[in-house]
Amino acid sequence: MEEATERDIAVFEAGIKLGGLYHQFVGAPISVDTIDGLSRIIEQCVMLQPYVRSVGVTIDSEMVEKKHNRKFDYCELEGRMLHVSLQILYKNTIAHCELVYDEELDYPLMSIKKIESIK
Amino acid sequence: MEEATERDIAVFEAGIKLGGLYHQFVGAPISVDTIDGLSRIIEQCVMLQPYVRSVGVTIDSEMVEKKHNRKFDYCELEGRMLHVSLQILYKNTIAHCELVYDEELDYPLMSIKKIESIK
Amino acid sequence: MEEATERDIAVFEAGIKLGGLYHQFVGAPISVDTIDGLSRIIEQCVMLQPYVRSVGVTIDSEMVEKKHNRKFDYCELEGRMLHVSLQILYKNTIAHCELVYDEELDYPLMSIKKIESIK
Amino acid sequence: MEEATERDIAVFEAGIKLGGLYHQFVGAPISVDTIDGLSRIIEQCVMLQPYVRSVGVTIDSEMVEKKHNRKFDYCELEGRMLHVSLQILYKNTIAHCELVYDEELDYPLMSIKKIESIK
Repeated sequence: MEEATERDIAVFEAGIKLGGLYHQFVGAPISVDTIDGLSRIIEQCVMLQPYVRSVGVTIDSEMVEKKHNRKFDYCELEGRMLHVSLQILYKNTIAHCELVYDEELDYPLMSIKKIESIK
Repeated sequence: MEEATERDIAVFEAGIKLGGLYHQFVGAPISVDTIDGLSRIIEQCVMLQPYVRSVGVTIDSEMVEKKHNRKFDYCELEGRMLHVSLQILYKNTIAHCELVYDEELDYPLMSIKKIESIK
Repeated sequence: MEEATERDIAVFEAGIKLGGLYHQFVGAPISVDTIDGLSRIIEQCVMLQPYVRSVGVTIDSEMVEKKHNRKFDYCELEGRMLHVSLQILYKNTIAHCELVYDEELDYPLMSIKKIESIK
Repeated sequence: MEEATERDIAVFEAGIKLGGLYHQFVGAPISVDTIDGLSRIIEQCVMLQPYVRSVGVTIDSEMVEKKHNRKFDYCELEGRMLHVSLQILYKNTIAHCELVYDEELDYPLMSIKKIESIK
């Protein structure tokens, strides 16, 4: 039974941000023309939260285009369209994490890429 | 017992957009610095949806500032911070609607301002 | 240029509720086993809002089952899984509205079924 | 530069669940009468997700009551109303985490309570 270390907190905080942005923005109306604007605002929202060092959001334009409704010419943001790279800096630890659509699992997978000590 | 008229559909569609944007974006992280970006993207999202003629989103910067967390220096978008002006054009009818925080009721009130026939 | 009538307000309020529940609950984790619980709570949430006379939510269990992730055995609520019947009572007017997935349009369509005067 | 351990993944997954439920359910209409139903469904939604061992959701009924709109007699779920206890089991590691409103910080704080090895 142990208390949380600096490293624990860094990856925990990364999970919070990825889970949070996912459930905040999935369902938002999107089209090929608004991909860029929506990606930037998701980044801005994440950057405001504690311990975020950097974040990059990409939305799969091919998927968006394929999902455009034929009559109304837009669709909704789905988890599988999202690619997010996130760095959390907590004290001297950087957690590099990611949200990527895993085609084989058919699942928007969040994972830890690496953990760095910067002392 | 009657079927829906053009006018009914115009105001119904306006309600859909206001209810939708509210529950999509409330809870998003926001600070004084990101008000503009978030307002523009909410407008873009609404503009994609059927029959929207125009939409203007304003977020109350005083409220945002007052709600900034002292330690983490941001807050969350709340319904009472939102001011939205929306025009729906369905065939020859324009419905002018609004979301405004009603201080007396302490409620983010959605209402129809006027309905116009443009034949 | 006209002001809103009782009938206008009834259908406007119906739109608010349908747009709102959609963007509040889409994205929630769901499985075949939790369909019933989630449907009931969406109904309860809608019933709290002003002027709701009745609401019935059905979630398409076949779609949910088909969308279950093979490894993790659940999926997310999507708009196309939702079927909602809603009655708004504003003064003496009842607006009967619906959210139904339209297969041909491939779109979760919200519509006014009929409007009733109950004097 | 290191790869993720079992322990890292356990706390990361805990963060995902807390961040996710927060941004999925904040904003939902709630009243004193629906607290129980909404708490149970949030628990059910979280239990569906990978590696969740247990979850308990409590919603502060005093806060809900205080926030009830006087005219419409309900309010919206806010982060500060939520108390969540979560256990993630990943392989042989249990991460005990929590979401609690921190009055001093005026912030819905997510934290790791302890980490257990169950070999």
